[in-house]
Amino acid sequence: MESNYRMKVQYDGTRYNGWQKQGDTDNTIQNKLETILSRMVNSPVDVHGAGRTDAGVHAKGQIAQFRLDTTMQPSEIMDYLNSYLPDDIGVTELTVAAPRFHSRYNASEKYYLYRIGTNKAAHVFDRKYVYEYRGGPLDIGAMKLATLQLIGTHDFRSFCGNPRMNKSTVRTIRTIRITETDDGIDIGFVGDGFLQYMIRIMVGTLIEVGEGRRDPETMNILLEARSRRLAGPTAPAKGLTLMEVRYS
Amino acid sequence: MESNYRMKVQYDGTRYNGWQKQGDTDNTIQNKLETILSRMVNSPVDVHGAGRTDAGVHAKGQIAQFRLDTTMQPSEIMDYLNSYLPDDIGVTELTVAAPRFHSRYNASEKYYLYRIGTNKAAHVFDRKYVYEYRGGPLDIGAMKLATLQLIGTHDFRSFCGNPRMNKSTVRTIRTIRITETDDGIDIGFVGDGFLQYMIRIMVGTLIEVGEGRRDPETMNILLEARSRRLAGPTAPAKGLTLMEVRYS
Repeated sequence: MESNYRMKVQYDGTRYNGWQKQGDTDNTIQNKLETILSRMVNSPVDVHGAGRTDAGVHAKGQIAQFRLDTTMQPSEIMDYLNSYLPDDIGVTELTVAAPRFHSRYNASEKYYLYRIGTNKAAHVFDRKYVYEYRGGPLDIGAMKLATLQLIGTHDFRSFCGNPRMNKSTVRTIRTIRITETDDGIDIGFVGDGFLQYMIRIMVGTLIEVGEGRRDPETMNILLEARSRRLAGPTAPAKGLTLMEVRYS
Repeated sequence: MESNYRMKVQYDGTRYNGWQKQGDTDNTIQNKLETILSRMVNSPVDVHGAGRTDAGVHAKGQIAQFRLDTTMQPSEIMDYLNSYLPDDIGVTELTVAAPRFHSRYNASEKYYLYRIGTNKAAHVFDRKYVYEYRGGPLDIGAMKLATLQLIGTHDFRSFCGNPRMNKSTVRTIRTIRITETDDGIDIGFVGDGFLQYMIRIMVGTLIEVGEGRRDPETMNILLEARSRRLAGPTAPAKGLTLMEVRYS
């Protein structure tokens, strides 16, 4: 009998073309997982991730789901996966889920963390997970002010990296938390979902605010304009990590 | 006028042949630092590290020292170094030291941490800094018992990786602390100094104790034998990090 499985996956996205499969032999996290599971049961397996992280983006708490017919225990499936996965991908939890559980449709919130470093020497051991910013001090107060206009339910088309996006670009951001760390700035985003590159374009825009090159009070105008051209640059993928997917 | 400088250096040792220079163009941490400083003042500079870490070993708190004649401020020297160093080496502190301060001769204690992982999937982000052990559960109690005979002042020739060592192999280990972590075992060593490979041979020997293949009460006999052949294998370099150098 087929069961529905839920797993937590973490990965260093540095050398992958993102989560989402783009062909049969491509270099994505989804493809790595599907290949191993399909070999295990000797038939095709589809793996669905909650967040379709872009190329170079990392995850500590991606949630993925798949259906299989096997007599293996969940812990055996997890061990099988981990024994064949490369050491930059790891499955840390695997359980039987409710029959109708879907990792993406049922997700109520996602928490992403973007790490900006301002002292390269301090990030020797996590240098692949921090965007090292070289442009001098950033005005954190102004950046925090700007986030106030971004929180809430808005049309985020100005922050959408896909110019051919023909579905709704309305999303709800619950919180944006900016924290000064010893050697940089962490920006945490919690929302019901995020458009392609949306967080990285917000970070690029917030950096311009922090540099004093953009008025923090203009985020409303930017949202209303619904134009990607008016927002800031897309911050590098390496600073972004999917930390947690929440289900209500 | 020449001043004496002290700096704290951290590095990911993965792609280096250790701290110590072995020629003029070799791939060592010491050589990287000396090359940049020598170019800065346009004359040769010698950099002395407190701990001569082996190839592949990491450091979060290496202390190094050098003498220079310059009008640059210490913070400018540090910025200069960090702007030319690769991103897997970083100088996190740099100050003027007492004229007679020597990073190695004056060091009273060194603290090294060896990390053993027992769950590869949990170490995706620090996989280069943890030795992933695949041999099943280890008896931590037996390992702790074995450390009791290693602590103190002993001739550690059985744990010396250099067969041609013709100086004293007597060292004092102040503490060995074994801690179970969520996904492995951390072993912290504090001592006045360590012979070549000494910590890694102790770890390899303690793992054999944990596996039940060696009696924890035989460490005294092993020390008295003064024979490298009787100790366990040298554990991999990647698990070892020089955490701190202390001066009294």
